[in-house]
Amino acid sequence: MKEFFKVTDLNKVLEYASDFPRLETEDIFLMESRGRMLAADMNADIDLPDFMRSTMDGYAVCASSTFGASEANPAYLTIKGSVPMGESPAFSIGVGEVAKISTGGMLPNGADSVVMIEHTEAIDKTTIEVYKSVAPGQNILEKGEDMHKGQTLVPAGECLRAQEIGLLAAFGKKRITVYKKPVVSIISTGDEVVSIEEMPDPGQIRDINMYTLSGLVEKAGAVPTTYGIVRDDFDDLFEKCTMALAQSDMVLISGGSSVGTRDFTIEVLSALPASEILVHGISISPGKPTILARSGDQAIWGLPGQVTSTMVVFEIVVKPFIEHIGGLSPEHKRHFNPVAQLNRNISSTQGRTDYIRVKLFEKDGILWAEPILGKSGLINTMVKADGLIEIGLNTEGLDEGTKVEVIPL
Amino acid sequence: MKEFFKVTDLNKVLEYASDFPRLETEDIFLMESRGRMLAADMNADIDLPDFMRSTMDGYAVCASSTFGASEANPAYLTIKGSVPMGESPAFSIGVGEVAKISTGGMLPNGADSVVMIEHTEAIDKTTIEVYKSVAPGQNILEKGEDMHKGQTLVPAGECLRAQEIGLLAAFGKKRITVYKKPVVSIISTGDEVVSIEEMPDPGQIRDINMYTLSGLVEKAGAVPTTYGIVRDDFDDLFEKCTMALAQSDMVLISGGSSVGTRDFTIEVLSALPASEILVHGISISPGKPTILARSGDQAIWGLPGQVTSTMVVFEIVVKPFIEHIGGLSPEHKRHFNPVAQLNRNISSTQGRTDYIRVKLFEKDGILWAEPILGKSGLINTMVKADGLIEIGLNTEGLDEGTKVEVIPL
Repeated sequence: MKEFFKVTDLNKVLEYASDFPRLETEDIFLMESRGRMLAADMNADIDLPDFMRSTMDGYAVCASSTFGASEANPAYLTIKGSVPMGESPAFSIGVGEVAKISTGGMLPNGADSVVMIEHTEAIDKTTIEVYKSVAPGQNILEKGEDMHKGQTLVPAGECLRAQEIGLLAAFGKKRITVYKKPVVSIISTGDEVVSIEEMPDPGQIRDINMYTLSGLVEKAGAVPTTYGIVRDDFDDLFEKCTMALAQSDMVLISGGSSVGTRDFTIEVLSALPASEILVHGISISPGKPTILARSGDQAIWGLPGQVTSTMVVFEIVVKPFIEHIGGLSPEHKRHFNPVAQLNRNISSTQGRTDYIRVKLFEKDGILWAEPILGKSGLINTMVKADGLIEIGLNTEGLDEGTKVEVIPL
Repeated sequence: MKEFFKVTDLNKVLEYASDFPRLETEDIFLMESRGRMLAADMNADIDLPDFMRSTMDGYAVCASSTFGASEANPAYLTIKGSVPMGESPAFSIGVGEVAKISTGGMLPNGADSVVMIEHTEAIDKTTIEVYKSVAPGQNILEKGEDMHKGQTLVPAGECLRAQEIGLLAAFGKKRITVYKKPVVSIISTGDEVVSIEEMPDPGQIRDINMYTLSGLVEKAGAVPTTYGIVRDDFDDLFEKCTMALAQSDMVLISGGSSVGTRDFTIEVLSALPASEILVHGISISPGKPTILARSGDQAIWGLPGQVTSTMVVFEIVVKPFIEHIGGLSPEHKRHFNPVAQLNRNISSTQGRTDYIRVKLFEKDGILWAEPILGKSGLINTMVKADGLIEIGLNTEGLDEGTKVEVIPL
């Protein structure tokens, strides 16, 4: 029997991520910051709103002027004026007085609440009836109620969504400091692999991995850069790796699933400057024959040749490394995956973590996960899949009806 | 009491989407197609793989040569040759013969399976012992097993993920036809709104909505284009709308949450060529004062001024329209939202669909949804939120412990 490499436990592999430094930062326009990782806490330099603001169309009032008002016994109040939008009212109001105000308008001095227009009736140009009392603070935003001066708006390490961008816009943060987007090189290897433009001869296969990996890298918020197909030639792969390390932040070598090509990849990785092979085989399936090396501060991956294995390894193992160097703080991840019920039993091998492709469907108000049949190397199984489910290291299998978390694909 | 507009039921509003035509198509590089909607079915013009392929390192064999083989009683087989990667083997094998083969190699004629290298031992250069029998078809992919010639690879209307791109790469589809990305104009209105570069005077507020909406449009797979801030001036808004209709596929007018500004927006929309007001108010909260109009084939939205309301309306109502004109088929949506348990009671008003912001957290293996307190107009509530939950039209509220689907934000 041929001796195989010693596999590393998945969690141990993931721990290596924090050994790699985060990327540098850059200043970008807020308008282009969706999906970027904020590099420094952003704080409120004013109150938001910076004035007492109406949240309704109606009349600004001192709440006490309305106490006891009802349909049967309305309060009669005097219109002192009208608040122009976007301006500070030039007058103040006292007890028994109101000012006409629109949503977003600034309350005049003396007012502490707004009566909705629906609860009033104009008697004449200077008098209204109010049918319902309001409490102080009702239908308004207090100064600083959304954000107080000095509060943290968005913490460093957060991935910016539309709402964080909106909040930063409210404080005029036109340019912000974010981590640079990781640039990830993709090198395809294998004597059987040809460019997708070519018609493959018998025995050849088009370079699927370059396309699939580019898509996954992009989805992970990084920038893919491709280096074409390298034959099983030491000098050629060494040169491409050196170039990729100089031009990017991480290198993915894909293809070459045979033992020979793996050995050969290890040889090249070992020859790179300041290199170390950290992992040679991971306790997951598919994806066992994965290599992780470092050259200086950069990670280099030798990924399995089968495209389906490569996709699983990327989602489960590589992506956390990209997120880490790209500046995403683990506590700011918003990963809440759907949970579904298995629609049949699945068996599994102990001693490794299995990832099973599933299709999701709803029936009788329940979300079901249907394991996808077919050999693991078939890309059509990934096209049919909505996600992956994990079967733990020490689990022999899962029963029909088990609730499983689904990692979206 | 002032008379209000008649609200339209949410489902009725969503039905209008199909009245708008899908956009034109364009040819793009497969490498740049992630997240795009395929415009025509793509079919397999060859088999994948196009030859019988090994999925293991080992020996190609005619399965019958191994029948009965075991550790105690190995089969002795003759090595006929070695299959070079990427080439069609120049020899065939017969009963009692094997060919050395790597993962991805092409099986020689006469072979129907592969014995894994782990289950063999080389005796000398021409003979191996096999310790385990294989069945025909074992450790190989049949010609066409992944995809048969003529099969649909990816149907029209599907949003392309990394795996669909990989499958199309396998068939050499270097350029593909997709729907054009919707270009969505954003016009901000309101006399109180100033550019984010300005320091707002008392009564003024920076233009948050332009930034938030741009982020949401981008997240929905469309291209935002902004037209700055328009004051409450008929000619100005009419001119900006006309320009936006000429330069984009859909127009969003944001801000102007007061009744006066709404009336004014209706006036401008009604004056546009071939225009019709389809919806003036929707039975949802927040987001009731939403306007939907058409001008010819294009949708124009009057969105609420409060940024939080605008975000909810965008997610629930506007996004399906963008997806529709952008070519996404409803049957190809992959929206499987997490389900969480409410951690307290929520009350709701019958006769409208309520959307409640929630924060998600895990405790004791259960995913909990915590409703976010605070007035609905506060943007910090959106920053705290992981998603929205829906409380239906005819529901008075939800009890603690109820399982709720969470729409991610």
